[in-house]
Amino acid sequence: MALVVAKFGGSSVATAERIKNVASRLVARHRAGDQVVAVVSAMGDNTDYLVDLARSINTNPPKREMDMLLSTGEQVSVAVLAMAVEALGVPAISHTGAQVGIYTDDTHTAAKIDHISAEHIRDDLSEGRIVIVAGFQGINSRGEITTLGRGGSDTTAVALAAAIQADFCEIYSDVDGVYTADPRICPRAHRIDKLSYEEMLELSSNGAGVLQLRAVEFARKYGVVIHALSSFVTDSPGTFVMKAEDIMTNDSMEGPVISGVAHDLSEAKITLRHVPDIRGVAAMLFERMAELNVNVDMIIQDISHEGLTDISFTAPLNDVEKLTPACKELSETIKADGVEINTHIAKVSLVGAGMKSYPGVSAKMFRVLADNGVNISMISTSPIRISIIIDADQCELAVRALHTAFGLDDEDSSGSVKVVR
Amino acid sequence: MALVVAKFGGSSVATAERIKNVASRLVARHRAGDQVVAVVSAMGDNTDYLVDLARSINTNPPKREMDMLLSTGEQVSVAVLAMAVEALGVPAISHTGAQVGIYTDDTHTAAKIDHISAEHIRDDLSEGRIVIVAGFQGINSRGEITTLGRGGSDTTAVALAAAIQADFCEIYSDVDGVYTADPRICPRAHRIDKLSYEEMLELSSNGAGVLQLRAVEFARKYGVVIHALSSFVTDSPGTFVMKAEDIMTNDSMEGPVISGVAHDLSEAKITLRHVPDIRGVAAMLFERMAELNVNVDMIIQDISHEGLTDISFTAPLNDVEKLTPACKELSETIKADGVEINTHIAKVSLVGAGMKSYPGVSAKMFRVLADNGVNISMISTSPIRISIIIDADQCELAVRALHTAFGLDDEDSSGSVKVVR
Repeated sequence: MALVVAKFGGSSVATAERIKNVASRLVARHRAGDQVVAVVSAMGDNTDYLVDLARSINTNPPKREMDMLLSTGEQVSVAVLAMAVEALGVPAISHTGAQVGIYTDDTHTAAKIDHISAEHIRDDLSEGRIVIVAGFQGINSRGEITTLGRGGSDTTAVALAAAIQADFCEIYSDVDGVYTADPRICPRAHRIDKLSYEEMLELSSNGAGVLQLRAVEFARKYGVVIHALSSFVTDSPGTFVMKAEDIMTNDSMEGPVISGVAHDLSEAKITLRHVPDIRGVAAMLFERMAELNVNVDMIIQDISHEGLTDISFTAPLNDVEKLTPACKELSETIKADGVEINTHIAKVSLVGAGMKSYPGVSAKMFRVLADNGVNISMISTSPIRISIIIDADQCELAVRALHTAFGLDDEDSSGSVKVVR
Repeated sequence: MALVVAKFGGSSVATAERIKNVASRLVARHRAGDQVVAVVSAMGDNTDYLVDLARSINTNPPKREMDMLLSTGEQVSVAVLAMAVEALGVPAISHTGAQVGIYTDDTHTAAKIDHISAEHIRDDLSEGRIVIVAGFQGINSRGEITTLGRGGSDTTAVALAAAIQADFCEIYSDVDGVYTADPRICPRAHRIDKLSYEEMLELSSNGAGVLQLRAVEFARKYGVVIHALSSFVTDSPGTFVMKAEDIMTNDSMEGPVISGVAHDLSEAKITLRHVPDIRGVAAMLFERMAELNVNVDMIIQDISHEGLTDISFTAPLNDVEKLTPACKELSETIKADGVEINTHIAKVSLVGAGMKSYPGVSAKMFRVLADNGVNISMISTSPIRISIIIDADQCELAVRALHTAFGLDDEDSSGSVKVVR
């Protein structure tokens, strides 16, 4: 008998039929003797509908009221999923974030979980119920509804799993696990059986969207084993995300050098040309970006030539509009040679815990790309990741070439992957 | 400066535009120096959508989960109305029933209000906010969401008005007050300025749907003055519902004999023919109806002829399906002559506190109907009401004739009433 938290995203509960499918899975699990807590997101595009409604009424809606509004989406999901489970003859009970005791700070629309009081859930489970909890939402110390922001439902699931000491936290989505690359652009990509938290964090933050970064961080902190599965494909073993030590112990002493190739087309590259090399210019620039809440990713500053240097950085495409005037203003203030913005870039990342102990991974990466005619415009590394910025048009070519060169190609299949969209 | 609770029904908040209109009204009130608490229903047909969703998933959904589901409708409304008020530059705050402290019993989908802890509202008002509260919903002692059932939002508004000792409880709908008859079938009907709780109760329970019976009962119990107004017509004084004594004191010593003519096409007439006149037959019949939760209205038993009698009663058309087999079974058991069901009837009621002291009202009523060729098949009376059952086809004729005969016709207008549908 296992104690399991299972999280289902918006596409898994988008229609009445899909909700019934989720209910069947939960009931099968329950009948097999497991104790099951489900965490669900809002149905399909319900959240988009509510956001549009809000903006049609107030172009800058108060965040407290946005939380009041958006939290209804998950409340609908939990109620109808409980009804679907009961229709199959198993007792169920739904809870909002507030009811289950997911206490957060006061940051409306992007609240952080402070603590969880899990007694309700334990009581319900001991009564033989399937417990269904609204993801994405909590309550602050004043009793106001908060939401956790992007990736909130995954975080709810992992946090609940930690609070009730669940054996696993299953995250169901429309893909049956984590892949060595995005199967849509790399047909020879294959599902990874096991990954360390660190590798998953690098993959998540570099464009592999199956698991939310924040939830993986939470899982690492509390040692929650994540099991990524598909809502639609039932015969795939999925991907486990766990401590690196546990992976090493269970399998070969030497893991693969590279776990996967991630790519990300959601960033832009911003360059300030011929910046006078005076003290504090970079600080001024990135302080200004921080004030604007721009999530700066890679940063490169060239070596100074004759007192002039170029500063480049990448940031989300969505932030280009708000950062552009600030960069132009700064360029004039410091008498630089203007701002160049390239919105047609790709970030491609090699990720693998194994690369720590293998020298020459970056050299091999650059050689492969050079042989394929791919120009690199920025490079950034961590102990288990190498990321490069290239032209967006060369993204597919680069991912496939690296995937093959680092021995990731699936020899068994020729591109038949279990993805339902 | 007045302290006002203002309730807006689903049609008043059905679209973003209408929500903005409601916000403008609240803000105008606030700027004029009043303290304003708004109570709102779910937007337009949102509740119907949710009910359909639930039934597509579970034909008999658990009531606890129905409350969890349906309560989201009002939560959406309060959030967006708060956004709309803030867009006009006035601070607003929304609350669910749970947050504002509307405590109910455990009867999911038809909960009764137990008590209200109004501190939150008083604090918010003292901070200069417009307070917006979700109607129709509350919380039970276990922290579960409950709904108040039919007419719940009106009841929330009146109960809140009682709890915070508001000067008035304004109920906004698509009609600008209570009319002497339904203007759709009686063009000479006119708006009533003031009505006693008792008269309003008789009108509500006899087909005049502007105010919910339950809310009027609540208002009478706690002495809350109700002001019925239109959301769409701004220049009508509406109708006040208050204590009979206050009406008498303020106006002429002698009120009008008749306040209005109500009609109701939502009932059926059921007759058990030639029932043997043995003790306890009526008790058996109506105990069975109570078990089936059938809301029996009028009851008539003829004088016995040769040990046989007819028993007739009226009940909602919606209940005919469930009461028919029970009646047939009973008819066989007691060896009656079968069951007749007439679904094509109208109930027409004369209502007026003044009729208590005027003899001959019923005689005049029957004379008017006889002169107009209307056959009466049942009669029922209270101290301030006379109701008759007639053929549905004669309903309009009867209402108009009585309206004229009892001096209710509006001499100023010829049928131009302020109704927006």
